[in-house]
Amino acid sequence: MAGTVSEAVIRRLPGYYRHLQELEKEGVQQISSQKLGRRMHLTASQIRQDINCFGGFGRQGLGYAVPELRKGIGHILGLNQPHRMIIVGAGNIGRAVASYHLFGEIGFEVTAIFDTDPNKIDANIGMMTVQDMRNIQRYIAENKVDICVLAVPSEEAQALADVLCVFGIGAFWNFAPVDLKIPKGIALVNVHLEEGLQILSFRMLSEMRENGSRREGNRVLGNP
Amino acid sequence: MAGTVSEAVIRRLPGYYRHLQELEKEGVQQISSQKLGRRMHLTASQIRQDINCFGGFGRQGLGYAVPELRKGIGHILGLNQPHRMIIVGAGNIGRAVASYHLFGEIGFEVTAIFDTDPNKIDANIGMMTVQDMRNIQRYIAENKVDICVLAVPSEEAQALADVLCVFGIGAFWNFAPVDLKIPKGIALVNVHLEEGLQILSFRMLSEMRENGSRREGNRVLGNP
Repeated sequence: MAGTVSEAVIRRLPGYYRHLQELEKEGVQQISSQKLGRRMHLTASQIRQDINCFGGFGRQGLGYAVPELRKGIGHILGLNQPHRMIIVGAGNIGRAVASYHLFGEIGFEVTAIFDTDPNKIDANIGMMTVQDMRNIQRYIAENKVDICVLAVPSEEAQALADVLCVFGIGAFWNFAPVDLKIPKGIALVNVHLEEGLQILSFRMLSEMRENGSRREGNRVLGNP
Repeated sequence: MAGTVSEAVIRRLPGYYRHLQELEKEGVQQISSQKLGRRMHLTASQIRQDINCFGGFGRQGLGYAVPELRKGIGHILGLNQPHRMIIVGAGNIGRAVASYHLFGEIGFEVTAIFDTDPNKIDANIGMMTVQDMRNIQRYIAENKVDICVLAVPSEEAQALADVLCVFGIGAFWNFAPVDLKIPKGIALVNVHLEEGLQILSFRMLSEMRENGSRREGNRVLGNP
């Protein structure tokens, strides 16, 4: 499967998973490509093409079986097994990731957080205590670590990733706004938070074009 | 333009913008759809289709003019004008967004941050002081606010968004893991951080399949 699915389809998989999860919660058992498309802002034919890529989930006439498709996509994404994460960097982003309950709920559990700053070491974040970076090699050797979250300044990220690869880290979720170079065989996702802002800016322009002069700036109510 | 471009293409626009910016920094003046495709993990034909959607940036034979295409896409995204943001919620996510320098560098400036918690009000975050939520209506009325970042718990997000729409907010960047319902005419982007983790999980599986038994867990070096 993996070899034949395009990067664009892969990027849409989590969206499918989320929408199918919501449908399941709403009690929906079957859904047509038309309805799923409308919900996900994709065409029905795009939905059929995508789902064909994942492998035979289709059901003629009835549409797709929601729980089955959700499970199938979860399996493709590897969500049927838990992932253990460590965080490097106990600044705002590291703390935010450590405290974000949703990750644990979907099977991505943070087990440790590290920093080099003596002012941050031994601080508590939720149930965890920030550990000294000097202990990270031993921690990785002694514990199962699937993913390392990099929440460090841009200028430190590459050198740190190089060392962590040697220590045995096989996957990075990188929040530093820099494109890391990593050896073949290591998994990497760079977070580009600013992309969300840029899409928002695009949508604001679209809304403005559609609404014309209906609104004037954001002074709808004026001074209270 | 906006009416004719699919949601999928819109979502790819920031990626184009980022890669073209990098190319510009590297001094690349022209690029073919093949080369841009390789860089962005898209096919050359996908690149040509996408760029056709945005309007005539093509140059036969020579490929695309990098600075012109970058500017064009920036214009479509509305990045040629500054955006002023306020943040609601001075927890870890709010602080992280407030402190993330990249946003300011690309024209999204945080001007104020608000919270209801007396322990957080008056705290300093960078150059800002956390303000009492009771002042937000006046702030919005008296200042230009383009975007409101919602960094509050899930259970508070919807009620807060409802009130902020009435106060005149026209665009939300929502970090609460809940799909907000907002009136027509308001722009919204929900951040789904967990999607990055799910893609990472997918890539880990792919790497494992490719590497077979080369690695055993992450114990590459063993105990130091």
